[in-house]
Amino acid sequence: MYDVIIIGAGAAGMTAAIYTCRKKLNTLIISIDVGGQTNLTSHIENYPGTGPMHGIELMRRFQDEAIGFGAELVMGKANKVDKTENGFKVGLANNEAYECKALILAYGKVPKSLGIEGEEKFMGRGVSTCVTCDLPLFKNRDVAVIGGGNSAVEGALESATIAKKVYLIHRRETFRADEITVEKLKNSPNVELVLNSIPAKVIGDKNVDGIAVENVVTKEKKELKVDGVFIEIGYVVDTSFVQHLVKVNEKKEIIVDERGNTSCPGIFSCGDITPVPFKQTVIAAGDGAKAALECYKWLTGGKGAVLDWTH
Amino acid sequence: MYDVIIIGAGAAGMTAAIYTCRKKLNTLIISIDVGGQTNLTSHIENYPGTGPMHGIELMRRFQDEAIGFGAELVMGKANKVDKTENGFKVGLANNEAYECKALILAYGKVPKSLGIEGEEKFMGRGVSTCVTCDLPLFKNRDVAVIGGGNSAVEGALESATIAKKVYLIHRRETFRADEITVEKLKNSPNVELVLNSIPAKVIGDKNVDGIAVENVVTKEKKELKVDGVFIEIGYVVDTSFVQHLVKVNEKKEIIVDERGNTSCPGIFSCGDITPVPFKQTVIAAGDGAKAALECYKWLTGGKGAVLDWTH
Repeated sequence: MYDVIIIGAGAAGMTAAIYTCRKKLNTLIISIDVGGQTNLTSHIENYPGTGPMHGIELMRRFQDEAIGFGAELVMGKANKVDKTENGFKVGLANNEAYECKALILAYGKVPKSLGIEGEEKFMGRGVSTCVTCDLPLFKNRDVAVIGGGNSAVEGALESATIAKKVYLIHRRETFRADEITVEKLKNSPNVELVLNSIPAKVIGDKNVDGIAVENVVTKEKKELKVDGVFIEIGYVVDTSFVQHLVKVNEKKEIIVDERGNTSCPGIFSCGDITPVPFKQTVIAAGDGAKAALECYKWLTGGKGAVLDWTH
Repeated sequence: MYDVIIIGAGAAGMTAAIYTCRKKLNTLIISIDVGGQTNLTSHIENYPGTGPMHGIELMRRFQDEAIGFGAELVMGKANKVDKTENGFKVGLANNEAYECKALILAYGKVPKSLGIEGEEKFMGRGVSTCVTCDLPLFKNRDVAVIGGGNSAVEGALESATIAKKVYLIHRRETFRADEITVEKLKNSPNVELVLNSIPAKVIGDKNVDGIAVENVVTKEKKELKVDGVFIEIGYVVDTSFVQHLVKVNEKKEIIVDERGNTSCPGIFSCGDITPVPFKQTVIAAGDGAKAALECYKWLTGGKGAVLDWTH
């Protein structure tokens, strides 16, 4: 029986853990990854106080601090939450279960998938949703990047510095990415734009051998020989497994008040899974601290965390 | 004419400046100090990502980053804000004035004063509101600390490590500070508790020579020979000079929505001057980023800062 289970180990969840642990709450973090969205930023400059660094490095520091203050970390996908007599029970995809008195939902957004043949089969074995994390595997090899937004265009640019050849596959003719980034892309000699095209299938036996694409205008089909596929088509909110407990908005984001309270007493939420409009590391961290202190206050009968500077 | 003037240079104001500058907004910070409340924490452990350090050092990093991204800094007390045709005009106590299109109020709380004779005269010259900042001046000398909350008790403990003798003057017999801290205090051989007592006068000609105190129970008066007086009786909110523009709550804090919007278009607020219940550096920083991005969005006609991860 933990005092607190935090689902998610990005900036919000890890900061929440730092705060609950410093309040001596017995804390377990359950997450499918460590670092969340911040990992995807190769050069984070706007998190105050640290100077520029890779997002992965910054999140490693958050992790070291959370673990250092006593948080436990279990890797896995939480997919079931039930109310119990004294709190909550969190079930994982591998059928493990953990119990807690209070719960902080901080697992952010989940990368969107294409839903095509071969995608799931090769996920983590040639198909990836994180250029920054997995690009080193494709040094001097050929890759495809799917998408048309900033993440895809920046991912293609980053790939071009390490991969031999990069195909950027985008279903439209124009990009939603910033113009300056698209301009850089067009000047990259080893990037080939595959526009008006959608991926149809990831091809391969044991490894990825290529990707089949179809031109949505000409209906022409072709196969591109690649060793890796990066899917950069955005994120979805997955709150289906908690909607019987907490209220969500029309985007399925978990509704919170300004302190991270959800509609269910004992469940708190913070970070990109909430309607916060700005997806920034320092904002997720700040809201993680709020949710943790509000959680502490709730567990201690309201006398806890409201720090009173007026003595 | 600045795009943005930020009043206050603590964690909230400085983070706001980092964000406005990175959006290429021409930014001026006006403040009576650099660092705000974070300066008072000698060992900040719960700001994620940096590891433990002195609050002053952490705030110096924030400052270096804000200035590095292009923010200008003017030291001074803003005490007048007026609406102009194209924005706002901020007046300072020294009669300087600066104009801007948008304003971010992030100046936090102001240390409470005792209102006794000699206090103002020796402020900054023997009387201080910040143990952490000014204690080194009193090495091997005698000091008085006024107050009964955590700040005062921690201030007295900290003083005892450097000063020769420390008087803790408190108007009641019991402390509101945490028990564990009070226990440490009682075990400090060079700390003398002066309870049920209020300070009546700071004594001195060119320098502080002592402090007159009166026992509120026995009415006995006495003088303590000290070289320094630390006032640690809390903070007040001073929003008198902006209340003709923005709505405040019953504590005179500036009311904001979850993005830092005040009741006045073009004026944003964040940090300890707002009703945020938790006074933490990372929370102030997160809310500073929100206010800055909302400000950017407002200046650019609503198309600005809402970062869309869904491409």
